[in-house]
Amino acid sequence: MKLVRYGDTGTEKPGLMDADGTLRDLSAHVADIAGDTLSDAGLDALRALDPASLPVVQGNPRIGPCVGNIGKFLCIGLNYSDHAAETGLAIPKHPILFFKANSAVVGPNDPVVKPRGSTQTDWEVELGVVIGTAAKYVSEEDALDHVAGYCIVNDVSERHFQTQLTGQWTKGKSCDTFGPTGPWLVTRDEVGDPQSLNMALDVNGKRMQTGKTNTMIFTVAQIISHLSQLMTLHPGDVISTGTPPGVGMGKKPHPVYLNTGDKMELWIDGLGQQTQIVFEDE
Amino acid sequence: MKLVRYGDTGTEKPGLMDADGTLRDLSAHVADIAGDTLSDAGLDALRALDPASLPVVQGNPRIGPCVGNIGKFLCIGLNYSDHAAETGLAIPKHPILFFKANSAVVGPNDPVVKPRGSTQTDWEVELGVVIGTAAKYVSEEDALDHVAGYCIVNDVSERHFQTQLTGQWTKGKSCDTFGPTGPWLVTRDEVGDPQSLNMALDVNGKRMQTGKTNTMIFTVAQIISHLSQLMTLHPGDVISTGTPPGVGMGKKPHPVYLNTGDKMELWIDGLGQQTQIVFEDE
Repeated sequence: MKLVRYGDTGTEKPGLMDADGTLRDLSAHVADIAGDTLSDAGLDALRALDPASLPVVQGNPRIGPCVGNIGKFLCIGLNYSDHAAETGLAIPKHPILFFKANSAVVGPNDPVVKPRGSTQTDWEVELGVVIGTAAKYVSEEDALDHVAGYCIVNDVSERHFQTQLTGQWTKGKSCDTFGPTGPWLVTRDEVGDPQSLNMALDVNGKRMQTGKTNTMIFTVAQIISHLSQLMTLHPGDVISTGTPPGVGMGKKPHPVYLNTGDKMELWIDGLGQQTQIVFEDE
Repeated sequence: MKLVRYGDTGTEKPGLMDADGTLRDLSAHVADIAGDTLSDAGLDALRALDPASLPVVQGNPRIGPCVGNIGKFLCIGLNYSDHAAETGLAIPKHPILFFKANSAVVGPNDPVVKPRGSTQTDWEVELGVVIGTAAKYVSEEDALDHVAGYCIVNDVSERHFQTQLTGQWTKGKSCDTFGPTGPWLVTRDEVGDPQSLNMALDVNGKRMQTGKTNTMIFTVAQIISHLSQLMTLHPGDVISTGTPPGVGMGKKPHPVYLNTGDKMELWIDGLGQQTQIVFEDE
């Protein structure tokens, strides 16, 4: 199933993208794509519906983030060996964890706004993992059972804020609009093996990032198991699992960063497409 | 005003601690101590009530975290010059920011549970700042106008997880139960100058931390202004502003960490007291 949230920011409705690519309204069945709806039982209840019986959504509404009421937005750093190489940093022994403020989350095609003073806004296509059932002290073997589904995340990053403001990386990751998430939450049964997904990112039509999840240093299952030793992962938490090579910071002969008007396009196998235009904050 | 949330975890009700120390029920007036209730208008509406007209809460209910539906839990590191000295780390140029998972938040007197494998669980008494109105690009001069009030936070920290798991500090800060918050949200008019508050923390009756907020490296106003350049601070966000000297990690001749059965007690001028017993996770 491809689950969608559509409508204006803050008042998104739940929807389902059917096999023909028609957006249908789930409002009569669930309040939101969030919380208990993401459990196996909640998703089974939606699977039991006949898509053809659901009202077709009229017009061309905005698509919101594919998960509502995200509790924690956990991000893994340096999780592709070739991306670690381009940054010049060592391969980590454990998954590097930082948080993205959940206030940074926006829809997949919403504008990305460079904060005042930003000169180093960068892109990062990533596989997002949406937790469906609470996970605490879970084994790698059982970890994927706690996943509701997957989505695209653009882990937009301000490199000066991230590395030069005596921060911890989170300072460059949490700016408003720096978390486009969606368009769809694709349930895990439909995605299959999360370690064999191709992904790419273009800026202004030029291919910048190309990667495949089989080169992750830590697999999705390893990440979930590790994080669940530290804290409970709750339904609606999102884990963004790191980015493959090709970020602007690593470009030769010099870094390339985003300018006003630039267009980012992102793809992951089976998870759809994101498109964002970059704006300057006033 | 001293605002309180009382009752079982997840179903806390809003309350008010009156001048006589009697807990009174605010359920007829607000749904929660959260969101818009924290705005100046929301707080003024509560101030307009006659406390004597509010029902007295019977029995001795659990006290929950004093803010509901916390969006972001932002923590400032190394913000007291003498604490920075005891850690051996340099005075930061800008406020160090990391996130505590909001799933770590518990009531002020709830158990603190050491996660499996923890051998270095430590304490940190801190002044918590509760945002009342959205703050973006605010000046230091205007920053405190965005504060609803203040509370005690115990920024419980697992030092091995924080420093040895290739993390970013957040790994040692986000364990379940590592964010006791409360007992009261004391509105800013009642607190006055947030830079002249004494604070202390005992473990098993022995004074471990003593500090005063006038030795902060970055003031509350400076912290809010700085963070608001990076991201919007929303009503119900909490900022924990760093800890004074005396954490277990810095004890001589060797570090001291928490054991099962230990009792922590925390105080900040005008903000009440917290008491937690340490448990081991099964």
